[in-house]
Amino acid sequence: MKLAIDAMSGDLGSHEVVEACKMFVKDHGDVTLYVVGKQEELEELKDLANVEIVDAREVVKMTDSPLGVRRQKESSMVKALMMARKDEVDGVVSCGSTGAFFTGAMLFVKRLEGVERSCLMAVLPTFNGKGSCLLDVGANAENTAEQLRQFAIMGSVYAKYVRHINKPSVRLLNIGAEDHKGDQVHQDAYKLLKEEKVIQFDGNIEGRELLDGNCDVIVSDGFAGNIALKSMEGTALGLMKVMKKAMLGSTKSKLGALLIKDNLKKELSAFDYKSVGGALMMGFSKAIVKAHGGSDARAVRSAMELAYTMVAEDVVTKMKEGLTQS
Amino acid sequence: MKLAIDAMSGDLGSHEVVEACKMFVKDHGDVTLYVVGKQEELEELKDLANVEIVDAREVVKMTDSPLGVRRQKESSMVKALMMARKDEVDGVVSCGSTGAFFTGAMLFVKRLEGVERSCLMAVLPTFNGKGSCLLDVGANAENTAEQLRQFAIMGSVYAKYVRHINKPSVRLLNIGAEDHKGDQVHQDAYKLLKEEKVIQFDGNIEGRELLDGNCDVIVSDGFAGNIALKSMEGTALGLMKVMKKAMLGSTKSKLGALLIKDNLKKELSAFDYKSVGGALMMGFSKAIVKAHGGSDARAVRSAMELAYTMVAEDVVTKMKEGLTQS
Repeated sequence: MKLAIDAMSGDLGSHEVVEACKMFVKDHGDVTLYVVGKQEELEELKDLANVEIVDAREVVKMTDSPLGVRRQKESSMVKALMMARKDEVDGVVSCGSTGAFFTGAMLFVKRLEGVERSCLMAVLPTFNGKGSCLLDVGANAENTAEQLRQFAIMGSVYAKYVRHINKPSVRLLNIGAEDHKGDQVHQDAYKLLKEEKVIQFDGNIEGRELLDGNCDVIVSDGFAGNIALKSMEGTALGLMKVMKKAMLGSTKSKLGALLIKDNLKKELSAFDYKSVGGALMMGFSKAIVKAHGGSDARAVRSAMELAYTMVAEDVVTKMKEGLTQS
Repeated sequence: MKLAIDAMSGDLGSHEVVEACKMFVKDHGDVTLYVVGKQEELEELKDLANVEIVDAREVVKMTDSPLGVRRQKESSMVKALMMARKDEVDGVVSCGSTGAFFTGAMLFVKRLEGVERSCLMAVLPTFNGKGSCLLDVGANAENTAEQLRQFAIMGSVYAKYVRHINKPSVRLLNIGAEDHKGDQVHQDAYKLLKEEKVIQFDGNIEGRELLDGNCDVIVSDGFAGNIALKSMEGTALGLMKVMKKAMLGSTKSKLGALLIKDNLKKELSAFDYKSVGGALMMGFSKAIVKAHGGSDARAVRSAMELAYTMVAEDVVTKMKEGLTQS
């Protein structure tokens, strides 16, 4: 297996990626890593077996316009994606800007056969700790019912082979439980999903239940999915800020905070609200994995493990099969 | 001024409404209340000046299908709405099912001239305590750009005359800040709102900022608005449950909870997450106010005060002026 790692585009710099690569190659003798970035920052990896350094002089910044990636051919991000385009690697990992990385993937990496639109998937942290996949969270400003059906199949295959859920429960984000709810696209999507044999469709889901973890895959058009994801994120972050302020407001409350700290940590560990916001690229012919911008070595390594699983399980082929079988 | 009060449809029964009416008439000698419901439950009001009891034998239940309201002509809810239809009252208040009440208003109360679609508005509790109006939160499954422009004007007039905000800041719920973001409807709506002289349009707002209170009116199509409102509600309620569980998990944490209780109450008072979920009916030729299903006497009274303000300030006429001037 061959993976390309964009070493430069994260918030914390190349050092964290270098550490992640060192950890990763120890466990995976079967993988060749192509680490793309300024070679002088990657010297530590130079002598490792199974690591190739690919020099790239440019860096795509978090503040760059996503569309600008078109012209950033010398950047570590685009160079890593180009290796996927040329079939030189099976997957790409980056902690760069989601917008730029997705745009780059759209421009440079082939779409999966049978997929009309690629999309972004987020794994929502749910209150029961199980997590649910939500797609699309904003790659598309609108989608057809047929595209929603394709998202459902991709999400379901992902949940099955990467998250090891035997028969993933798929639901459609809508404004009511009944099949006639929503606009024409969502009414049509409901019908298509109901008829679709390669997935387990369990009906509509409303915004209120999104974090309950009662299903594995939530299908949405990109507009509503983006609004839902960001609304939940804003609410969670805002509420946590309020709680923190209340706890640190006085000496008395600080003492109180100390006393509930352990329990709070335990309860919130199931619901890691900080991880809302990351996203996976779905619908490409290669495994394209986006780590959080602020990823440390451990988080980058997790992203690499994810790409590894996707390739090892041949998720892309299984998605293609699901899409063409149906 | 004349107001019709549906006394029967709330979760807590007619008693709370009776108490609310007693409080209300004390302060408002200029209002005649038509209290609609089972007369034997309203006897306490019988001898009050300015109160008329209108007997109604049926009750619309929270679990009834909203469309069923068509046939519930003898219900307190429909009888109250019919008084508005016949110009016998200036406004209607109910704590019944939002769906049934809105459907009833659509069926029986005239739409405001110039309004293509009526809609539901929620006042979001924001972290800065100011609150923001969000409309539509789900009356419509889809909307045109022109309809979004009309929502903007109605929301703006409401914020100005009912919430007493001099120049309400209006924003459009969208999936990005720039004017080209979103689908065609939202791109077109951006243009219409930008050109609209009777409102102060301050651009797009993303889901993440909805509860920050940085604007007064948030315009949305009914689909995205419903998803946003319910996503925020689910997140807030779920997180509060987690916090509570953490606090009550052990003797140590219970003590801690006692110590931070005062601060927490203070901080959360600005952000009353429980109040997310109520909704106002916009676009009708009368003031139609929906109180929470679980409203106690105080909450019913607030809803009555709201209807009073809407009629006293002649908000409906001002909306019409705003819509026809533009």
